[in-house]
Amino acid sequence: MKRSRISIKEVSDWILQGIKEKAFLPGDQLDSIRHLADKIGSSPLTVSRAVSQLSEEGFVITRPGKGIYVADPEGKNLLNSGFVGLLIHDDAVGKLRGSSLFLSTLPSVQYKLFQHNTQAVMLKINTPNSESKDFIQPSAVANRKFAGVIAFEITDLSYLMQLHNKIPNLIALDIDVSNLGIPCVAFDHQMASVDLVRKLHEMGKKNIHFIGGPFPAPRKKPRYFYDSCAKDRYDGWRLAMNFFNLEINDQSAHIVKYRSADYFEKEMKTLLESNTPLDAVITENANAVNKVLKEHGRDDIAIGSWSSLDALPPEEEHEEVENEVFMAGLDFVQLGEEGSNLMLKILEQPDYPATRKLLGHKILKYKPEMIFPSN
Amino acid sequence: MKRSRISIKEVSDWILQGIKEKAFLPGDQLDSIRHLADKIGSSPLTVSRAVSQLSEEGFVITRPGKGIYVADPEGKNLLNSGFVGLLIHDDAVGKLRGSSLFLSTLPSVQYKLFQHNTQAVMLKINTPNSESKDFIQPSAVANRKFAGVIAFEITDLSYLMQLHNKIPNLIALDIDVSNLGIPCVAFDHQMASVDLVRKLHEMGKKNIHFIGGPFPAPRKKPRYFYDSCAKDRYDGWRLAMNFFNLEINDQSAHIVKYRSADYFEKEMKTLLESNTPLDAVITENANAVNKVLKEHGRDDIAIGSWSSLDALPPEEEHEEVENEVFMAGLDFVQLGEEGSNLMLKILEQPDYPATRKLLGHKILKYKPEMIFPSN
Repeated sequence: MKRSRISIKEVSDWILQGIKEKAFLPGDQLDSIRHLADKIGSSPLTVSRAVSQLSEEGFVITRPGKGIYVADPEGKNLLNSGFVGLLIHDDAVGKLRGSSLFLSTLPSVQYKLFQHNTQAVMLKINTPNSESKDFIQPSAVANRKFAGVIAFEITDLSYLMQLHNKIPNLIALDIDVSNLGIPCVAFDHQMASVDLVRKLHEMGKKNIHFIGGPFPAPRKKPRYFYDSCAKDRYDGWRLAMNFFNLEINDQSAHIVKYRSADYFEKEMKTLLESNTPLDAVITENANAVNKVLKEHGRDDIAIGSWSSLDALPPEEEHEEVENEVFMAGLDFVQLGEEGSNLMLKILEQPDYPATRKLLGHKILKYKPEMIFPSN
Repeated sequence: MKRSRISIKEVSDWILQGIKEKAFLPGDQLDSIRHLADKIGSSPLTVSRAVSQLSEEGFVITRPGKGIYVADPEGKNLLNSGFVGLLIHDDAVGKLRGSSLFLSTLPSVQYKLFQHNTQAVMLKINTPNSESKDFIQPSAVANRKFAGVIAFEITDLSYLMQLHNKIPNLIALDIDVSNLGIPCVAFDHQMASVDLVRKLHEMGKKNIHFIGGPFPAPRKKPRYFYDSCAKDRYDGWRLAMNFFNLEINDQSAHIVKYRSADYFEKEMKTLLESNTPLDAVITENANAVNKVLKEHGRDDIAIGSWSSLDALPPEEEHEEVENEVFMAGLDFVQLGEEGSNLMLKILEQPDYPATRKLLGHKILKYKPEMIFPSN
């Protein structure tokens, strides 16, 4: 049986309104979860989720065993000036919690800032796409009055631009948004594609296809799923192919609709079955491509791809490989450090010029199984 | 003596309010300029300017000798469905009215659309930077209910993004904004830079500097003056230099702050006086760079640059040149045609995928004087 009930958003709006109208002052202790639930006419579970969310967003501070306190946006709590807010896309928190990306970048940001008497507070966001209730509006982030905000792997360019308009010291990590005037530190995917094609060309490969995407963004969802790295990878491939006078056409560029392994596998299968001359593939999903090549016994086709340096075995373990795989290794620890350095410079010198820093890739050669153990 | 007076904006707001509140209905004839001036308490000149502006924006239609009529946004006037709005940056109208860019692109758009029973109406805009009173808000553009809007050379990405959120069929010309999910037709500046470096390398040039910008956008004016072509030109140069293992560092990339000839000349002078080894320069302002090279008698330094094909002499007139200049010729007629084709496809097929079309450049060799007559 359906019945109308009070949502998490309604509860958090009720609490936020109280804060806004100074019904609850900074430092005030709020009622307990149970009391709040009675007052609002909601369930304790809903209130608990709303409070947890407000805590992540920095509006309240929960002290286990003690209670819920209203945070002081201007004052002396965790969120006062001098702190840097770290915006993390929910996907990164959820799917990548155990990944080298999450384990490498964030601690390196926090450690670097800590060394310079600056601390980073993490805020989880969901971009509007996810339709999550805990999407943090740019204005809410700005209201926290951070000394600066580091946005990590947030690919919603519209959201970033709104943040940029509201927050004086914003930098973006892992995405090149310099064309929006936003200072950033990102991997140089164009150069990596060029280098991968160069390596493949040195091996005598001529028919080098590209499988990646989505690029451009889907028309129906222009703001979402957009990964500017995909564009850079594609452009690097395109330019390098032109450089070597290698053939490039609509049939050699395979733009997959979403970043799902299924699409890459399907595209790779179709390509193999079409009997198009094919010597190598440049792709962001070597795992999926390699799987299909194995199934078809096509050890002659080389792969150029990207991977976190942490995922790669030490170079001395390198052995003769069947189908050549060149990995453009991404150093996420360096990403965190360079991002923190940029933030510190901006905090020290308010006139520090807007800048993008592009990080190089190590191009390495590995046997696919070393990087992607079969499971 | 200063006295408070009614501004053009106040007059146009008064008229717009009347339209909005249905005091004036579509098709209604408004009072004459003089009567309106009396009614509002403003000067006839101010009213005339306000009306002229509202006419450009499509809110009213002025019929010389007959009067001023309220346009019908939903109805049968110039602005009804089936018409395409052409957004032109005020700079383009003002500074470039006589240029090949203005004379080539816009007629080719209009002619192409006209052939397909679609007409284009021009709207002049000023982006917020200009602080002009006749800046058209994206919502005002959307209210005109055009079948589609072609934005020509509008480099304010924030403005484009707002338009994109409000207008179903928007395409951008002369700027690659595919990373914002906006369909576009643009010149392939990356590839042109690659080709220019290639040509120069074939001549044995090794120390190839880049003078261009602004890139990234100035920190203080992140939304303005930003030219994504400058980024693409820089990236193409960077990738090609890497390709040939030519040295590239902070000293070989000269990012000038604004697109003014003065900055290019100053930067070029400083570079020459620094005695840095220099064989060639890739720049968007060959005119300024060439002027300085002439003054210093440096015929040995080559230039790679960009120019409209219309500005170039016929190829048969090509003669032996002193300092090699490779022009990446931009075909603005083709730009207009490709843009119109894309708009027509989108109008015919609502599900037409978001796309970017990059137009190639003709790489040609000319004596600078042929392209930039000294004045």
